[in-house]
Amino acid sequence: MSEKLSKLKELLGEVSDINRAAAVLGWDQQVNMPPGGSEGRGQQLATLGKIAQEKFTTDEVGKLLDDLKQEFAGADADSDDAAMIRVAARNYDKAKRVPPEFIAEQAIVSTKAFEAWVDARRKSDFSIFLPHLEKNVELVKKYVSFFPPADHPYDTLLDDYEPGMKTAEVKAIFDGLRPKQVKLIKAIAATKQVKDDFLHKKYNEKKLWDFGVDVITQYGYDWSRGRQDKAPHPFETSFNVNDVRITTRFEADNPMATLFSTFHESGHAMYEQGVNPAYERTTLAGGTSLAIHESQSRMWENLVGRSLPFWEHFYPKLKKTFPSQLDGVSLKTFYKAINKVEPSFIRVNADEATYNLHIMLRLELEIGMVEGSIAIKDLPEIWNAKMQEYFGITPSNDAKGVLQDVHWSYGSIGYFSTYALGNLVSAQLWEKINKDIRNLDDQIRQGNFNELLTWLRAKVHVHGHKYDPQDLVQKVTGSKITPEPYVRYLTTKYSEIYGL
Amino acid sequence: MSEKLSKLKELLGEVSDINRAAAVLGWDQQVNMPPGGSEGRGQQLATLGKIAQEKFTTDEVGKLLDDLKQEFAGADADSDDAAMIRVAARNYDKAKRVPPEFIAEQAIVSTKAFEAWVDARRKSDFSIFLPHLEKNVELVKKYVSFFPPADHPYDTLLDDYEPGMKTAEVKAIFDGLRPKQVKLIKAIAATKQVKDDFLHKKYNEKKLWDFGVDVITQYGYDWSRGRQDKAPHPFETSFNVNDVRITTRFEADNPMATLFSTFHESGHAMYEQGVNPAYERTTLAGGTSLAIHESQSRMWENLVGRSLPFWEHFYPKLKKTFPSQLDGVSLKTFYKAINKVEPSFIRVNADEATYNLHIMLRLELEIGMVEGSIAIKDLPEIWNAKMQEYFGITPSNDAKGVLQDVHWSYGSIGYFSTYALGNLVSAQLWEKINKDIRNLDDQIRQGNFNELLTWLRAKVHVHGHKYDPQDLVQKVTGSKITPEPYVRYLTTKYSEIYGL
Repeated sequence: MSEKLSKLKELLGEVSDINRAAAVLGWDQQVNMPPGGSEGRGQQLATLGKIAQEKFTTDEVGKLLDDLKQEFAGADADSDDAAMIRVAARNYDKAKRVPPEFIAEQAIVSTKAFEAWVDARRKSDFSIFLPHLEKNVELVKKYVSFFPPADHPYDTLLDDYEPGMKTAEVKAIFDGLRPKQVKLIKAIAATKQVKDDFLHKKYNEKKLWDFGVDVITQYGYDWSRGRQDKAPHPFETSFNVNDVRITTRFEADNPMATLFSTFHESGHAMYEQGVNPAYERTTLAGGTSLAIHESQSRMWENLVGRSLPFWEHFYPKLKKTFPSQLDGVSLKTFYKAINKVEPSFIRVNADEATYNLHIMLRLELEIGMVEGSIAIKDLPEIWNAKMQEYFGITPSNDAKGVLQDVHWSYGSIGYFSTYALGNLVSAQLWEKINKDIRNLDDQIRQGNFNELLTWLRAKVHVHGHKYDPQDLVQKVTGSKITPEPYVRYLTTKYSEIYGL
Repeated sequence: MSEKLSKLKELLGEVSDINRAAAVLGWDQQVNMPPGGSEGRGQQLATLGKIAQEKFTTDEVGKLLDDLKQEFAGADADSDDAAMIRVAARNYDKAKRVPPEFIAEQAIVSTKAFEAWVDARRKSDFSIFLPHLEKNVELVKKYVSFFPPADHPYDTLLDDYEPGMKTAEVKAIFDGLRPKQVKLIKAIAATKQVKDDFLHKKYNEKKLWDFGVDVITQYGYDWSRGRQDKAPHPFETSFNVNDVRITTRFEADNPMATLFSTFHESGHAMYEQGVNPAYERTTLAGGTSLAIHESQSRMWENLVGRSLPFWEHFYPKLKKTFPSQLDGVSLKTFYKAINKVEPSFIRVNADEATYNLHIMLRLELEIGMVEGSIAIKDLPEIWNAKMQEYFGITPSNDAKGVLQDVHWSYGSIGYFSTYALGNLVSAQLWEKINKDIRNLDDQIRQGNFNELLTWLRAKVHVHGHKYDPQDLVQKVTGSKITPEPYVRYLTTKYSEIYGL
């Protein structure tokens, strides 16, 4: 190995160690930390973040990257080293453009904005949040200004989560998707609603937990390289390829969410567990983008975990676990219930058919805010109008509307679309998988997920960060991200469930 | 505040953040980490350790310390800032003397030595460990050589754990203690042994855990700034003054150990929770030395937790919790059983009366190894001879003898004595406390520990690292560490229990 490459790997390895250490502190904060610990922890995380940034953006790293780009100019772009240098150089360029003072300013502004948002949501009063959101958006625009002009200012934001993806591409994808999804939801709304009262009975938390654990063990989540804990918000986090953890929660009024969030997070986790171990401590470690990550979590949660073959296998066991709650409930009835479609105000509880519309709504607003075509003060009104247009419902107050999500209070703008893109990719991969594994449904019906996971490992997981999301999807499915498979998936599934 | 002082605090604050972050990773490693995580975690800890060392030993820190020493030359030595600068300067001087290559070499050598020790202990074959221990001792001597000559080479090692303490002082203390303790044990051995079979019945783990939690809640351990988990080895660790955690374990054949290790660790934890919050992120944060730390843990475990007044309060509740196990067992019988004295091979399970002898034995061997008066190859023989001399028993093999402790395999030499010193300090403080709080026994009999904790907070805890251990003991009790109070304590207690 080139001496310079080896030096670069050593330096970036340390940066990775610091970031992973910060991830441990973040996990602990969510899972274990006593209330008193938060101030000290915040300080520790700030210091680690600062050191990681400093160590990554030294002139020494810059010089090594310049030299290595030249050295590897003629190399196979598909080689690991070339990819590592390419990704590192891109990250370096981004990190160098953003001045440390800006990061500090944004931290202060968004901390205040978060507090204002909490207050505004509690009082359902957008005016409390308005000046803070305006300031956040201003900073987002300033952030964009550090980068070379793009086709669209939103491109710069999107690129942080979906490297190489353009706003125009996302718009085109969603424009193809929106009318079909709206049409589907309206068709469903016109039919008789399915029954799901039995899902809202009392379910024992421990039994739900154990059931979820058994399912994801069968999926192939490797417990010798992970663990599950309880946390207020479910998430997945990785400390290295051999320590990939998930959390779930229990909601008394929505007990099945414990199961489905375990399935969901296990999808993220199996992705991380499947990355080439040789990428450890390099910029190729970990999943390549939020959308690809979400494709994995949504696949195991929905395309597998909310499918009929899956429940043909698991429903008898679930019924045995909860005999009184599911007494007299047939497999078909249960299957329909967990796939109930219902226009709703709150994104995080939305079903598969309506979820993407929540995302599109937000994306349109975000793009409008960033390009200046939407005035922040008009957001509540626009929000409500779009809710009416897409879902046929209007929130009774801003807490259930424009104030529901925390993201904008952090100043995080640019990644909502990745949730919807993840859904699309999950279906796109699924069509390809079903071509490669002809009897996949039968395998799932047997509770056998081995071939599916092996396929995902080889085609998606192992590559880590090596390919940008669009390139990866192209490489695996033969085309870039496209909405058709998802529309076909939804239409087939819901036509059957709702007899459309 | 002087601009230089404020700069120094900023720099040392970052070093503290990194070290505290490493503590979180270390805690997680013991408590949560899946087996797969160890390699990556080791790497992360190595990187954090390296960065903390680098950031602490910069010329900038050195220059600031030099300037500040001058600036504070005339200041009240008792002021927090002066103490902080003094402690930081001492730590800086130490850190600068040890070359990074030496630290790296020691890490490699001790990792191999640890593996050899595990193997040697399993096979009870000292010869497997011998060459590694020789190498470890060689490195310890090399470490000593980085420092200016002291009265005794062991002084340099001891100073890392008990700042300012001399080998000659420790020897003198132990010389005063040894004959009295040996005499006591022989007197006990000549009497009728107490009954304790009921302590080794089956006890429910959860109930023991809950009982321990209730006791330390009553002690004053602050759960809003801490938590307890299970770990293979009980320990206390602090991430900041408001996040101080403990662990305990369950041993089926020694169930009461769950309780007493909870009491013990809570003593460490209450010390850390009681340090002046203004010392956070400075070199004054945390307990001042291992011996003072151990004085707190042993006090709450033994002087409080194994006392008759304590059990006068708690025994009825314990009996209610374990009615069948303690059926027909009187308070007095129970009290005697938990204080049973018995010469034994294994230090960690030793009772209060024999524990210190285990420590003295090791200290004598360590001093001999470091000054070269003992050949490493002769250790097993010397060990066994001393066991016979002090306890009247000889281990049947080296696993139960010279190979029992892990410490020497790490190359850790110099801190065994702190365990025994901690016992002495606990009794020395106890005599003073009982002068200041005349009805302490009555308070304990009522389950009221408030005045005791308040006393410890004000006299010991709040000072953190401000005073060196001998100075602190002098300040609080009027004399340096001395064995008499401990001898008086043991003699009184065991004379009554064994009717001497």
